Amino acid sequence: MSLIGKMLIAQGGGPTAVINQSLVGAILEAKKSEKITEIYGALGGVDGVVNEDFIDLTFETVDNLKLVAATPSSALMSTRTKPNEEFCKRMFEVIRHHDIRYFFYVGGNDSSDTVRIVNEFAKKADYDMVAVHIPKTVDNDLMENDHTPGFGSAARFVMQAFKGINQDNRALKGVYLGILMGRHAGFLTASSIIAKEYDDDGPHLIYLPEVPFDLDRFLKDVDRVYKKYGRCIVAISEGIQDKEGNPFVTRLIKTEKDDHGNVQLSGNGALGDALSETIKEKLGIARVRSDTFGYLQRSFAGVVSDVDAREAFEAGEMAVKYALHGRSGSVAIKRIANYDVTYELVPLENVAAKTKHMPESYINKAGNGVTKEFIDYVKPLMGSNIPDMGRLRGRKIEKTFKK
Amino acid sequence: MSLIGKMLIAQGGGPTAVINQSLVGAILEAKKSEKITEIYGALGGVDGVVNEDFIDLTFETVDNLKLVAATPSSALMSTRTKPNEEFCKRMFEVIRHHDIRYFFYVGGNDSSDTVRIVNEFAKKADYDMVAVHIPKTVDNDLMENDHTPGFGSAARFVMQAFKGINQDNRALKGVYLGILMGRHAGFLTASSIIAKEYDDDGPHLIYLPEVPFDLDRFLKDVDRVYKKYGRCIVAISEGIQDKEGNPFVTRLIKTEKDDHGNVQLSGNGALGDALSETIKEKLGIARVRSDTFGYLQRSFAGVVSDVDAREAFEAGEMAVKYALHGRSGSVAIKRIANYDVTYELVPLENVAAKTKHMPESYINKAGNGVTKEFIDYVKPLMGSNIPDMGRLRGRKIEKTFKK
Repeated sequence: MSLIGKMLIAQGGGPTAVINQSLVGAILEAKKSEKITEIYGALGGVDGVVNEDFIDLTFETVDNLKLVAATPSSALMSTRTKPNEEFCKRMFEVIRHHDIRYFFYVGGNDSSDTVRIVNEFAKKADYDMVAVHIPKTVDNDLMENDHTPGFGSAARFVMQAFKGINQDNRALKGVYLGILMGRHAGFLTASSIIAKEYDDDGPHLIYLPEVPFDLDRFLKDVDRVYKKYGRCIVAISEGIQDKEGNPFVTRLIKTEKDDHGNVQLSGNGALGDALSETIKEKLGIARVRSDTFGYLQRSFAGVVSDVDAREAFEAGEMAVKYALHGRSGSVAIKRIANYDVTYELVPLENVAAKTKHMPESYINKAGNGVTKEFIDYVKPLMGSNIPDMGRLRGRKIEKTFKK
Repeated sequence: MSLIGKMLIAQGGGPTAVINQSLVGAILEAKKSEKITEIYGALGGVDGVVNEDFIDLTFETVDNLKLVAATPSSALMSTRTKPNEEFCKRMFEVIRHHDIRYFFYVGGNDSSDTVRIVNEFAKKADYDMVAVHIPKTVDNDLMENDHTPGFGSAARFVMQAFKGINQDNRALKGVYLGILMGRHAGFLTASSIIAKEYDDDGPHLIYLPEVPFDLDRFLKDVDRVYKKYGRCIVAISEGIQDKEGNPFVTRLIKTEKDDHGNVQLSGNGALGDALSETIKEKLGIARVRSDTFGYLQRSFAGVVSDVDAREAFEAGEMAVKYALHGRSGSVAIKRIANYDVTYELVPLENVAAKTKHMPESYINKAGNGVTKEFIDYVKPLMGSNIPDMGRLRGRKIEKTFKK
């Protein structure tokens, strides 16, 4: 098959710090091929496709593309729209109308599903087209992938934040709760563990959506750590659930739902504030603080894992390579060494609308921390030049002053 | 005067990303002098002094000190204790008992006041001692100083965060509220303006403690910006006050007071959440998100202004130089060029227990933004290698698809 024609690329869902690396990786690879006659970008993800909001990327300079690649969030802008069948049919019709033969969508598992459905419409209509999904998500919850582009940089932000929090909380004591992104998968929250350098460093406790959250056990854990160290640093996933699988935050406050029917977890401090109040009341600890990391962790400018950036770029590049060989599917990152990766093309339905969770072997038996296996898994993804924290080593001076 | 004896150094108040630079700048300078026989560090600020919690820093290696200097927060740990006269008297007695002749305290305006009172006790007792206050505060609210060590790095964190938020909010639209530190002074909140590169970039609105906060005017401002750009990014100081000078957050929720009698502003998301809800209700905007930057902005590991780090180090170095010449006082940073600084020694009472605010010339007439004069003031403090954000430039493709 030697398809000649236009290419269309779009970005969907929550932005990441390196999603533009994938965009630019794909564009630069496409520019090398004579088969791709023009490069269109859809503005605002799938909405941009149905609304024909296209810009021509054929004439972008390499220097500007490199600058865009290093810019966080989606340069083509994004959407939270979750397309139904009719929406996808309309997407296909617009694609066909513009004689687009290569379609790329950078996104999470919902985006993968959209690519799959649009591709089905093309097949049914006997329209020659290749469609490739390029993975991204800070949640790291895509099937088939050892990890996903965007996760490493978000994990690095979380790790660097907890490195600082370790020092801050050591200086002023008390309990600190950091609320991290992760609706169903705890990878990002768990990554805070890499901040730990000294034995008494935090995070001392980690709570994940994969382990049913029990408030009494949580309070006992905090009390025990606080009594031991005079302080306690806790990493908590925004998506922690009760035994029945309901977001724990819904027990505490009125919540809002997005277009996907998901409860809004980020963008407010409710969970952290409610847990703080509970600790103050039940444990009688005066200084309890919480920070909800919110949007900073996925789009902060200037904190990027170089490993993540390179892989995001390569995932985009590989998507175009596979497409130029006539293969539709989803690019998936496989770990092949300690540490290296390769990029396979897997069937779209293997990734579409599914969620990967933290495996049991990554979670400690008590359900309030992670294992060495998880640390070995996540550490290489954070990249190089990680800031090292130091402590004074001076011996204690004997107390000789009489009151 | 040629005082020979021990030196004692401590760190007080809220940590900063570069407070250890000042500590190490002072220690390394002290190590050069034969007059300083031993270097003691007090653990936990003034509490460490009264409790005789001293460690011996005389034998710290240079390499370890450099690592500590680059580590955020207070390596000697800190305290929120605000000493009264009796407390200061006890501090002096412990200092005299240990034959300490050089006393240094790195801190904000309360710390400066403590140094002043302890110094008064020494004078009254005819005890030969030199006491120097070394400035620090992310709030940038110390008198006599053009700016304070710690502020530049916190401002840089805020700026880089808003650079990312600009991209994130452009991709997914809606209203974004970033709640920043600053109880009485809006410098840190105002620094978010440096994130703005393109005309339509945020922050579009900035609210400072220096301007009485009017909820109706705020809502009108947000509405206007949102109608213009389809989105709106707002930087709000945690310390915004009503016309009567009460923290605005006390109108919204039950609050907690610290040992200084200050209402707790950081460490919860209450202000941002309440303002978000108000925008949703009154303006009918669906997607409103808020992040309270909390402790990340003052102690994040790995985001530091090189200018700030150098100046913090030099402030510590200069404190020891002045002390070795027998001069007590507070080190103050003066701007002498565009851009360079010098370090003067000013009387402790000029800094002690006073607060500097944003001058009127830094605030726009509408009271919802800053002036070019502020931008010129703050930009050099953020240091070098600021991440540059890029955008795609492609022309729009004509819409030709018929529904």
